[in-house]
Amino acid sequence: MTTATFAKGLEGIVAAETQMSFINGQKGILEYVGIAIGDLSSHSTFEETVFLLWNLRLPTKSELEAFTKSLRANYALPKGFNDRIRTLPKDAQPMHVLRTLVSELALYDTNPNANDLEAAREKSLRVLGMAPTMVAAFDRYRRGLDAVAPDTSLTFAENFMYMLNGEKPTETMARAFDICMILHADHGLNNSTFTARVIISTLSDIYSALTGAVGSLRGPLHGGANEGVMHMLNEIPSLDAVEPYIMGKIERKEKIMGFGHRVYKAKDPRATDLQKLAKQLAEDTGNSDLYAKSNAIEKIMERELAAKGIYPNVDFYSATTYHCIGLKLDLFTPMFALSRLAGWSGHILEQLDGNRLFRPTAQYVGPHDVPYTPMGDR
Amino acid sequence: MTTATFAKGLEGIVAAETQMSFINGQKGILEYVGIAIGDLSSHSTFEETVFLLWNLRLPTKSELEAFTKSLRANYALPKGFNDRIRTLPKDAQPMHVLRTLVSELALYDTNPNANDLEAAREKSLRVLGMAPTMVAAFDRYRRGLDAVAPDTSLTFAENFMYMLNGEKPTETMARAFDICMILHADHGLNNSTFTARVIISTLSDIYSALTGAVGSLRGPLHGGANEGVMHMLNEIPSLDAVEPYIMGKIERKEKIMGFGHRVYKAKDPRATDLQKLAKQLAEDTGNSDLYAKSNAIEKIMERELAAKGIYPNVDFYSATTYHCIGLKLDLFTPMFALSRLAGWSGHILEQLDGNRLFRPTAQYVGPHDVPYTPMGDR
Repeated sequence: MTTATFAKGLEGIVAAETQMSFINGQKGILEYVGIAIGDLSSHSTFEETVFLLWNLRLPTKSELEAFTKSLRANYALPKGFNDRIRTLPKDAQPMHVLRTLVSELALYDTNPNANDLEAAREKSLRVLGMAPTMVAAFDRYRRGLDAVAPDTSLTFAENFMYMLNGEKPTETMARAFDICMILHADHGLNNSTFTARVIISTLSDIYSALTGAVGSLRGPLHGGANEGVMHMLNEIPSLDAVEPYIMGKIERKEKIMGFGHRVYKAKDPRATDLQKLAKQLAEDTGNSDLYAKSNAIEKIMERELAAKGIYPNVDFYSATTYHCIGLKLDLFTPMFALSRLAGWSGHILEQLDGNRLFRPTAQYVGPHDVPYTPMGDR
Repeated sequence: MTTATFAKGLEGIVAAETQMSFINGQKGILEYVGIAIGDLSSHSTFEETVFLLWNLRLPTKSELEAFTKSLRANYALPKGFNDRIRTLPKDAQPMHVLRTLVSELALYDTNPNANDLEAAREKSLRVLGMAPTMVAAFDRYRRGLDAVAPDTSLTFAENFMYMLNGEKPTETMARAFDICMILHADHGLNNSTFTARVIISTLSDIYSALTGAVGSLRGPLHGGANEGVMHMLNEIPSLDAVEPYIMGKIERKEKIMGFGHRVYKAKDPRATDLQKLAKQLAEDTGNSDLYAKSNAIEKIMERELAAKGIYPNVDFYSATTYHCIGLKLDLFTPMFALSRLAGWSGHILEQLDGNRLFRPTAQYVGPHDVPYTPMGDR
């Protein structure tokens, strides 16, 4: 034990095998089950992508129909659940609410601990189906509005926007949101995905693993970063102010939110896709100034820091995208969670298939053989 | 990335440094900050042990008084919280309830995300103070009884038993429970502790990290094992039935709950302490048959499997102990959680001091360069 190397942050340690996503950080490549992320964001849907991640192949038409039907059958919350949402503190932060409610779903499951592969799939679908309903219900409650019941004739993306706003989204908006869901669905052994695998490795349950993952994603070094990007954009009053703002941060060696990634040393391919989306949406929704500021930041960063392998990551243009879709700032990270539930569940399925308990060791660096000194002698 | 070794379950990988607990699995030694666990269980209290783990030294008299006072100031739940507990499904399992309620505490914190070291200590104390109150309140609610308000004149152990039963425990019972709390407080980088460190490493928050840890502990390969031991003891009708029951399991190569540990290849020193406690309590409470069955199992296991390094672990005698204290089976793992909150929080403090994001890699073992086949061509 004492001879092993201390791998701080487990950097460079392979902690799992996966058949879901492949990342080449040097070349900026991301594939889901071998399919380039750009092909999926151009041609696929979130529902099809979830099927792909959970089954390691694209569905046939009838398989996709059956899968979509099962997902939609899980849109509605358990009886009494919405009443409980409406007694939560209204000023609570949505990520804390989502973590709590994902956990609470276990209390409305008659067999919450089942984790054979079939049960794991069922429970994963249940959480994925209900999570948007919970987020929308809490948001409407805090705004003083009644909940909007889910509509099972709508896609995952359409239904969420419908439940949030009380009206169906335009096709452009729904497609933009769907693309965001595709792009964020899985990404190797990121911290929240790793958390889910670590928890399920005790043969705990799907709810425990997904709850832990939501808690991890909340962190500003992980999913919370997209809110940080928006804060930064809001702090910069105009296009002219971008250069001094960013250069000041670089000189003070402060972190620029939305740039740099442990894995990517090239431009994150998801950022490339999101940039196109953000540009179009910004024009459509009168937010061209926001896109212009983002783009100016990227150009300065490229000039100053690309040599160090610091490029825009997935959070950078997702901030502008979510803002243009009309989402409030504190719903940005919950949106990431709605999508990443797909990846978390897929990794849980992989972990359960040939599980081995995660139990690394700690290097003890304290004293030994210390006597217990009675209180009178201290 | 592809040249690294795949460390399944991270066995043998040092993932953190700690100054809290030292384990020598070969010799069966456990120390907290250098003090032998047997000295602490003989002479210390849970409150003092928590101070030790969080401050890396024993407190002075006035420090212990101040710490105890702060802990007791956190016994009472936030306003409205108990009413929400009393709308939960009554048949929910206590570990799912505890995980949900630890998460929900964040919604009643006006600054839940603060994680500087001072805030982390405050929030840790808050969760530690309130967790017993939540468990007792839920248990009384499901039994159709009113909640018993905490009594700040009582110790952690006394207060929990008082809130659960509506009457103060005997000195013997309170001391037995306190010893259980000392013995379970910390244990290196076990799965739930590792979970807490992984989550907080995104600079998420104390509630997220502790919630994830509760979810991990629930698993039968971790804290859930103590319930498994009790199930086994209940399955064995008499002392005579022990030999054929255990030999049958060994022949069928089935796991015997409460034996074996990834780290210990000798008798877990906590098991030694718990065995003494279980024996005394069993005699005092008319449960000598239960202790006799446990002891007979240990003797057979020693005869058959000690050569393979399979010895009783902490769960084995804690089952009898908790049963004699009068706890219901599904409260065994929550008791483990109440104690281990001390260790989880201590590790969170260590992780935040010089944090590095946990971000291992996954080895991708799927296909590459797969074209997106349009639906019509599948």
